[in-house]
Amino acid sequence: MVNAMLTEFYRQVRQRSLTLIQGLSAEDTQLQSMPDASPLKWHLAHTSWFFETFVLLAHDPDYQAFDPTFNYLYNSYYNAAGKRHPRAHRGMVSRPSLERIRDYRAHIEDAMLRMLPSIDTKIEDIVQVGLHHEMQHQELMVTDFKHALWLNRYALTQIAAGPATPLDEAVSSLNNWRDYDGGLVLIGHDTSQGYGYDIESPEHQYYLQPFALARSPVTNADFLRFIDDGGYQNPDFWMSEGFELSQQQQWQSPLYWCMRQYLQSSDPNDIQLMTWGGYRRIDLNEPVTHISWYEADAFARWAGARLPTEFEWEHAARQQSVSGHFLEDKLYHPRAIATQAAKSDQLQQLFGDVWEWTQSSYAPYPGFQPAPGALSEYNGKFMINQMVLRGGSCASAQAHIRATYRNFFHPHQRWQFSGLRLAQDR
Amino acid sequence: MVNAMLTEFYRQVRQRSLTLIQGLSAEDTQLQSMPDASPLKWHLAHTSWFFETFVLLAHDPDYQAFDPTFNYLYNSYYNAAGKRHPRAHRGMVSRPSLERIRDYRAHIEDAMLRMLPSIDTKIEDIVQVGLHHEMQHQELMVTDFKHALWLNRYALTQIAAGPATPLDEAVSSLNNWRDYDGGLVLIGHDTSQGYGYDIESPEHQYYLQPFALARSPVTNADFLRFIDDGGYQNPDFWMSEGFELSQQQQWQSPLYWCMRQYLQSSDPNDIQLMTWGGYRRIDLNEPVTHISWYEADAFARWAGARLPTEFEWEHAARQQSVSGHFLEDKLYHPRAIATQAAKSDQLQQLFGDVWEWTQSSYAPYPGFQPAPGALSEYNGKFMINQMVLRGGSCASAQAHIRATYRNFFHPHQRWQFSGLRLAQDR
Amino acid sequence: MVNAMLTEFYRQVRQRSLTLIQGLSAEDTQLQSMPDASPLKWHLAHTSWFFETFVLLAHDPDYQAFDPTFNYLYNSYYNAAGKRHPRAHRGMVSRPSLERIRDYRAHIEDAMLRMLPSIDTKIEDIVQVGLHHEMQHQELMVTDFKHALWLNRYALTQIAAGPATPLDEAVSSLNNWRDYDGGLVLIGHDTSQGYGYDIESPEHQYYLQPFALARSPVTNADFLRFIDDGGYQNPDFWMSEGFELSQQQQWQSPLYWCMRQYLQSSDPNDIQLMTWGGYRRIDLNEPVTHISWYEADAFARWAGARLPTEFEWEHAARQQSVSGHFLEDKLYHPRAIATQAAKSDQLQQLFGDVWEWTQSSYAPYPGFQPAPGALSEYNGKFMINQMVLRGGSCASAQAHIRATYRNFFHPHQRWQFSGLRLAQDR
Amino acid sequence: MVNAMLTEFYRQVRQRSLTLIQGLSAEDTQLQSMPDASPLKWHLAHTSWFFETFVLLAHDPDYQAFDPTFNYLYNSYYNAAGKRHPRAHRGMVSRPSLERIRDYRAHIEDAMLRMLPSIDTKIEDIVQVGLHHEMQHQELMVTDFKHALWLNRYALTQIAAGPATPLDEAVSSLNNWRDYDGGLVLIGHDTSQGYGYDIESPEHQYYLQPFALARSPVTNADFLRFIDDGGYQNPDFWMSEGFELSQQQQWQSPLYWCMRQYLQSSDPNDIQLMTWGGYRRIDLNEPVTHISWYEADAFARWAGARLPTEFEWEHAARQQSVSGHFLEDKLYHPRAIATQAAKSDQLQQLFGDVWEWTQSSYAPYPGFQPAPGALSEYNGKFMINQMVLRGGSCASAQAHIRATYRNFFHPHQRWQFSGLRLAQDR
Repeated sequence: MVNAMLTEFYRQVRQRSLTLIQGLSAEDTQLQSMPDASPLKWHLAHTSWFFETFVLLAHDPDYQAFDPTFNYLYNSYYNAAGKRHPRAHRGMVSRPSLERIRDYRAHIEDAMLRMLPSIDTKIEDIVQVGLHHEMQHQELMVTDFKHALWLNRYALTQIAAGPATPLDEAVSSLNNWRDYDGGLVLIGHDTSQGYGYDIESPEHQYYLQPFALARSPVTNADFLRFIDDGGYQNPDFWMSEGFELSQQQQWQSPLYWCMRQYLQSSDPNDIQLMTWGGYRRIDLNEPVTHISWYEADAFARWAGARLPTEFEWEHAARQQSVSGHFLEDKLYHPRAIATQAAKSDQLQQLFGDVWEWTQSSYAPYPGFQPAPGALSEYNGKFMINQMVLRGGSCASAQAHIRATYRNFFHPHQRWQFSGLRLAQDR
Repeated sequence: MVNAMLTEFYRQVRQRSLTLIQGLSAEDTQLQSMPDASPLKWHLAHTSWFFETFVLLAHDPDYQAFDPTFNYLYNSYYNAAGKRHPRAHRGMVSRPSLERIRDYRAHIEDAMLRMLPSIDTKIEDIVQVGLHHEMQHQELMVTDFKHALWLNRYALTQIAAGPATPLDEAVSSLNNWRDYDGGLVLIGHDTSQGYGYDIESPEHQYYLQPFALARSPVTNADFLRFIDDGGYQNPDFWMSEGFELSQQQQWQSPLYWCMRQYLQSSDPNDIQLMTWGGYRRIDLNEPVTHISWYEADAFARWAGARLPTEFEWEHAARQQSVSGHFLEDKLYHPRAIATQAAKSDQLQQLFGDVWEWTQSSYAPYPGFQPAPGALSEYNGKFMINQMVLRGGSCASAQAHIRATYRNFFHPHQRWQFSGLRLAQDR
Repeated sequence: MVNAMLTEFYRQVRQRSLTLIQGLSAEDTQLQSMPDASPLKWHLAHTSWFFETFVLLAHDPDYQAFDPTFNYLYNSYYNAAGKRHPRAHRGMVSRPSLERIRDYRAHIEDAMLRMLPSIDTKIEDIVQVGLHHEMQHQELMVTDFKHALWLNRYALTQIAAGPATPLDEAVSSLNNWRDYDGGLVLIGHDTSQGYGYDIESPEHQYYLQPFALARSPVTNADFLRFIDDGGYQNPDFWMSEGFELSQQQQWQSPLYWCMRQYLQSSDPNDIQLMTWGGYRRIDLNEPVTHISWYEADAFARWAGARLPTEFEWEHAARQQSVSGHFLEDKLYHPRAIATQAAKSDQLQQLFGDVWEWTQSSYAPYPGFQPAPGALSEYNGKFMINQMVLRGGSCASAQAHIRATYRNFFHPHQRWQFSGLRLAQDR
Repeated sequence: MVNAMLTEFYRQVRQRSLTLIQGLSAEDTQLQSMPDASPLKWHLAHTSWFFETFVLLAHDPDYQAFDPTFNYLYNSYYNAAGKRHPRAHRGMVSRPSLERIRDYRAHIEDAMLRMLPSIDTKIEDIVQVGLHHEMQHQELMVTDFKHALWLNRYALTQIAAGPATPLDEAVSSLNNWRDYDGGLVLIGHDTSQGYGYDIESPEHQYYLQPFALARSPVTNADFLRFIDDGGYQNPDFWMSEGFELSQQQQWQSPLYWCMRQYLQSSDPNDIQLMTWGGYRRIDLNEPVTHISWYEADAFARWAGARLPTEFEWEHAARQQSVSGHFLEDKLYHPRAIATQAAKSDQLQQLFGDVWEWTQSSYAPYPGFQPAPGALSEYNGKFMINQMVLRGGSCASAQAHIRATYRNFFHPHQRWQFSGLRLAQDR
């Protein structure tokens, strides 16, 4: 990338992190709702620490660290970068204040913008990782804060909303297939073509059996039918440990749904969704989201289908350009699926809107080589007990998304914008 | 109490809660470090909710609630007052903001100060409970925030401090006894004499065997000798479940001590204490504090003594007036014990400085009658698995302390200003 | 005690342990249902280890240990006796076999019976402790095995039983008081008068306020009325942490009751009790048993009464001789309270039948001196978080019971034969 | 299969379960050391319940159930077969006795042997599943009982053993590769060729990149070098959650190793292994076993290699016949690797000895169809969070093993005979 473009890209990405907290209080940025999530303030500091540690301190002999205690406070999980504050206690760091973190960011920006015009390609690569890293954290800022709001949901206001689509008029993703031939296909990122994480490479051949993919992701209407059909109570649809977990935690709907019985509504179809901005009535035409892999897998079995593999998904996605409904739109919920669009020949909403769970576990590709040095810890040490999601969500930055992108989470996790698209053997 | 005096008392107590957060950020007031503790912001709101619920809404027909959701958010544990926000999630309430809680307090002050001049004695009693309740929460504000700082202690600054007393010159509480005859004594609060909680009454006769009390509380110097003698490793000194707990949690000193081996100090006697204001070198002449009942009990056995009963303590305390080192001093740590004072005939530092663990479990006095209505839940429903502490601490308001006051905590809890005074049979 | 009498006492007590497992399989004696309980086989071995360690190895220079690994396997909690097998894994010790434990007992009997005729009073005291220790374990053998059966209760047979008393004809313990004057009374064991544990001494003066005790323990009929009145659902009756626990664990009746709704009985009053021998219909005239302190305390508050202190109980009990329904009767459930007896001037069933929870925590008496040496660990190190029970149960050996006896358990524990007797202030 | 052969196979398999408990006591068969494991007695009953439920009760109208409570007690996890005894409490089922379970088996044998000569192929298929099911449980009988012994290991005797191979003379599996070309290969069980579980099918094409496999499994000598090189302390080799777990649980060696520092041996290389028969000195030439996936994966990274995929393993294994060291040998530990054999062109010990962890998660093959009816629960509902192992162990029945067999366990589990073979990209 030409350095001027990189500089502009740097400005944009860094600015977007600050845009995300506009209108929020210092107290809002302090919240940590669970060990999996982090405070907004921590994300702002950690993403800056990344540039400070791997670019400035490593490659600028004149650079002075902003504050030596920050290496302890804002290292996330890099063993190579030393000891660190316990993850579960990130929400206890009221000091440094949000104001001081803003100063920290300004200090980093200053040093980075001085350095960027003259860096070589090796450092450029690290800057690229840092920016993609920050975009990844921007998505987490949306989902982590949403989860914190959930634990204080009775203080949220209700957003007035017009009448929802009746269930029998809503868009369905069922029985609307696009078939694909099998055969040897190319999977993975070609490192000569733009940015990709280490785990997306090398590009390699993979043999697919014939299959079909649903033209659109599963909608809220589809998922409501699964619920109404007793899907959460019937072990036949579930993986054994998923069913056990759902019973223990009394799952009866996706996370953030507020079901009819808990609302004082006279309308039996009034289901509310919790969002960043408060509650609003569910839109049955939107893709379902905030479900675990267990729920996605159970839904697919109920629907007489299965989850796609990540290879099937990528093969289909390589035929489309990346466009969709991304973080830039500032809505933080998926777009409704247009009825007519669902009939087109193309797959709908492959990118943006929701991450789609696959049946593939997160594992190395043949010939995988981790990034060198401390950055080898970025992705490589999480390759167990996690499932791949593909596509990108309404909280993903568009520049962060591509057909070969591999996201991954544990099968029980629900706080991401995670949904599914059905697949079948052909 | 004459209403004008009550009004002045009301102003003072309420103002002190705000004084406590001077210099702290909104983020600081958001922290909840464990389910036992609460955010400062929550304390500010809950103490106001108490007046709103039990005085204003109950007795002023014209009063308008500030915000109807606050009853859910700021009820602590009164079943009679309805459902409430889960205790463990108090730290998630970033909304309402600190600013709004300040407005809430102003709203309550306004209504209370209008009402106070004309209330009858029944309501006056509830206002008195409310003010003592608030003083109790002021102590918790100090100890809860101190505990939150502990989880972020590496961000705290070091306070420069002069040289400490050498161990062999420090004041000891050992072998400095004052003897008491036994016989029938009076225990408990006489309800015709000033304020007391329901659990301090009725005043009743109690038969004491002859005993002795140490003239001063156990000092840091004494406790350091216990540590150096292997006290934490020797089960002979400990209650069985206390020893098990101390091993599991790897206790090696009181909470908030930073022992020699963790400091890069060349002085082997350099022990640091964490305080609200940062770290400072230990003062060996101060009473030891932040120890559990298990540690207090083990120390006493090591010293060839025992904990006093709450009856022995009260009998001795009734002979003194309440004076000491209280919250009003704004230091939030105990006063050092003066060498010469330790030789006087009087007991030192009975009130203020540190709460003193006793060997008495928290149980009803003969003839105990809980306060009427919802306030019966204030004290009465915690009379199991807790031990009585007597005396008051450097974080107690002076007006809150008296010889009959019974504080109580679980034997494993360490985050209060809890120490001990030795006793022996005679 | 004359040595011949001690020998005979020794024979009887030791034989009774074996009688308890008559008719049980080796597999039955292997069960450990929770860390609080131990396998029958372990009790048989541990009580023998006690004599081996504290009598034979300590005082007979010619004695050869039966098996050196047994000190590791069968030490319960004596730190002074060395390392030990983890308590929670006692149920994993299938080797040594039950047959080998029988041989161990025979080996100990042989050595002990050779030694007993010639021991001095110091060793005699230890033998006495050993026999009382074994009687204590005999009670645990009954309750621990009962609890293990509970976890396999669907394999138990139903015992045919005749019709139970209708609820409105059943004996009630309510409103049937015997009054006591207050004043200075004697409490505790006089060490010159027969056997007593260290914790029962010294005998000392205690000042009582006037009080009343119910003439009989609370019956199943009384407790059923509490249940039917919503007692388990109403927090007003409960200590706060008791209510929380009862909700978490979904307590709706005493342990071992099988309530109407779970039985396919046409009779709405058909409640079944699980016993050693299988299920049988509840006898409403029996004292209620297998309740926690929390339930006993809540029941008392519901009944407009309170639990007695252990001092009130002992004062009343010192006026009666020990007689009742003990382990020797081999029924292992309490005797029904006779209607006419409930009207007599005497308290009913003070000894035997059920342990009665008191409101006294387990704490040292003034002047308490633990037994010397390793036996100081026998009782003294458990004096925290436990409540005193008085009286003895249908699973207690008669020789083990006296008016000064202090039993103690945690307030949440339910697997002992624990009930209550009401008290009131006068 | 011709019915006479099936009858003979039935006799052999069923008999082997009883052979496994020869010499063990009823108490031994009662032990359950953790929820993952089951008592030997339970295995004996459950495998019989399988035939009773899915063959006799389903297909023989004249068959009388041995005991109707057994369906509750011995159903493992089949929702379609009704409610069941909680898994974690299997060790509490002392009744029915071992003797009664023997009678149960005899009752089933009687009915089955009467039925087998005349069954049709549909029932024959179920009988086949039942026999393979029983062989699977036979392996668990060995590993579950071994784990129970571990919790009582100080009662085990030491087996005298001759001197072990010095570390520098021991066989190594490192740097001894056999290369394979990539390309399209066949994976999975051809259902027309002998028995296979549903999850091994369908046979399908898979595209492999060129790779290499080590000629022999990793030996104890190899693993000792990893330990001595600080492998357990270096996070660089580990998956993040594996390292965290290993630190929490203080893993320092494979399960069942007793390291030098805990033995009172003068020989620094004296490492002992716990086995069914007691302790014996480690044989450095044996394959390492009882390691988790996390340890296998970390070892491979330390060795500059990786785990093979299950497809690479199967491709190599299809070129060999099944022969090895199986349950029939009655030793229950892997065979030492012969030095000369390691140099041959063939892979050593692919079958028998140890299960080899792969980097493949347990997932459905393309076109997977679960077995019909209740047996669909046999394998299909566990396809998440588990990793595939290949090959078979010294505790596997030979008739149960084939090149397409897919075993699966969670990555943290260590109590199976699990080891590894290295792979590399080519």
